[in-house]
Amino acid sequence: MGGPPAIRLLLAYEGTRYVGWQHQPNGLSVQAVLEGAFQRLSGCSVRAVAASRTDSGVHAAGQVVLLPNPSRHDPNTIRRGLNALLPEDISVREAAWAEPGFEPRHHARGKHYRYRIFNRSARPVFERALVWHLRRPLDLDAMQAASELLRGEHDFSAFRAANCPATSPVRSLDRVAWSRRGDELHLDVLGRSFLKQMVRNLVGTLVEVGWGRLRPQALTDILASRDRRRAARCAPAQGLCLLRVFYAPEEYARALASRD
Amino acid sequence: MGGPPAIRLLLAYEGTRYVGWQHQPNGLSVQAVLEGAFQRLSGCSVRAVAASRTDSGVHAAGQVVLLPNPSRHDPNTIRRGLNALLPEDISVREAAWAEPGFEPRHHARGKHYRYRIFNRSARPVFERALVWHLRRPLDLDAMQAASELLRGEHDFSAFRAANCPATSPVRSLDRVAWSRRGDELHLDVLGRSFLKQMVRNLVGTLVEVGWGRLRPQALTDILASRDRRRAARCAPAQGLCLLRVFYAPEEYARALASRD
Repeated sequence: MGGPPAIRLLLAYEGTRYVGWQHQPNGLSVQAVLEGAFQRLSGCSVRAVAASRTDSGVHAAGQVVLLPNPSRHDPNTIRRGLNALLPEDISVREAAWAEPGFEPRHHARGKHYRYRIFNRSARPVFERALVWHLRRPLDLDAMQAASELLRGEHDFSAFRAANCPATSPVRSLDRVAWSRRGDELHLDVLGRSFLKQMVRNLVGTLVEVGWGRLRPQALTDILASRDRRRAARCAPAQGLCLLRVFYAPEEYARALASRD
Repeated sequence: MGGPPAIRLLLAYEGTRYVGWQHQPNGLSVQAVLEGAFQRLSGCSVRAVAASRTDSGVHAAGQVVLLPNPSRHDPNTIRRGLNALLPEDISVREAAWAEPGFEPRHHARGKHYRYRIFNRSARPVFERALVWHLRRPLDLDAMQAASELLRGEHDFSAFRAANCPATSPVRSLDRVAWSRRGDELHLDVLGRSFLKQMVRNLVGTLVEVGWGRLRPQALTDILASRDRRRAARCAPAQGLCLLRVFYAPEEYARALASRD
């Protein structure tokens, strides 16, 4: 352990302008912007670590970030200072001293992602940066039936990106639930961790079910095939948001049981 | 009467980029953009009429617009065509033939405006274009108590803009209700019509009550003074949205009784 004390941040960002959380040679990352703001605030150059490497264009309402803090600023000063320096599409919601040894990625017990589909004919206005707009009505019951088949532990090779860096393709989906909210359909997915583009690949295939092009049972065959070419196109990043990261097992258990 | 058949549109727009609904010499109006899109679609130059002249920066989820239609396009074609041509911050939600003689402004029985305050310390991200961000906690009960004093018919001279064109300063507030939704406080205001900047001037003064700088009872004195200088600053336009316009008296009565 050792090292300077560190701050734990709860971060929200609209991913539209960013190549994702992580540093990339080809564009602006949330990580680079956050580290740059901290350097301006404190004069210290540090490396921030996040619970989830959100992909390019994906949003976060509750990303958890560990920020080493060699400066003398306390968490509240850092939160206010960062919010004064960060662009308007990134906000530090909370800041606190991190427990020694805290690792946002490895200690996470569960993550909650939500995918939003805007399902009416006329274009969205207020939600346009945060949803996938699909004009043709989707059959929610069929999509829910298909989603049930995904729950539990599976080899998700058919739903991982070609460049997914994970060593194992096995993941456990602890909750997969669709709900209707006005003009929107929401998919809530909870699990300990996910393969690269896994949620968006699942959504792309479930939409085919919602349009009646695939039967719900087809999901079982596609999973078993472990063949990415059997699944449908990847749903666009802008509909996906990391809502929350869980560290306390009892909080995660409550979220699995909840209907929100 | 006479004239070409007309289309009744239900329009949503984010007001951020616009000088308001109505044509202005100093910038882009929603009206100009809509009329321009219709001209490109149909070759016809017409004048659109809206139920409410929303101010610069104010949003609408349910503006009602009458669009004369000398073209041979039917409402569905016009809706789809306009949505293909309009910028992403304006959307035609619905289009139908208007009843002969329909006047969106004069026939309106009621309007529902909502003002959204984002009331937490950290900046909003996803809602940032649609809310007024106030860091210091507001006392919702005090604001509600003050709002009760505004219900009914009053001379609202103390809350009208200096350049308000209305001949009478008397208006009737049929419902004034605050509610808390997560980090937000919402003010729902329903009435047949409003003076220029009246809702925003009311919000600015009610916020002073929410911070304990004014007592709820002060609203009665400020109303009675009919003096604009007695009320507080005008709340920013970006928190205000025209949610709905009512034409059927029974629908308006239902909205007055509802808790949404």
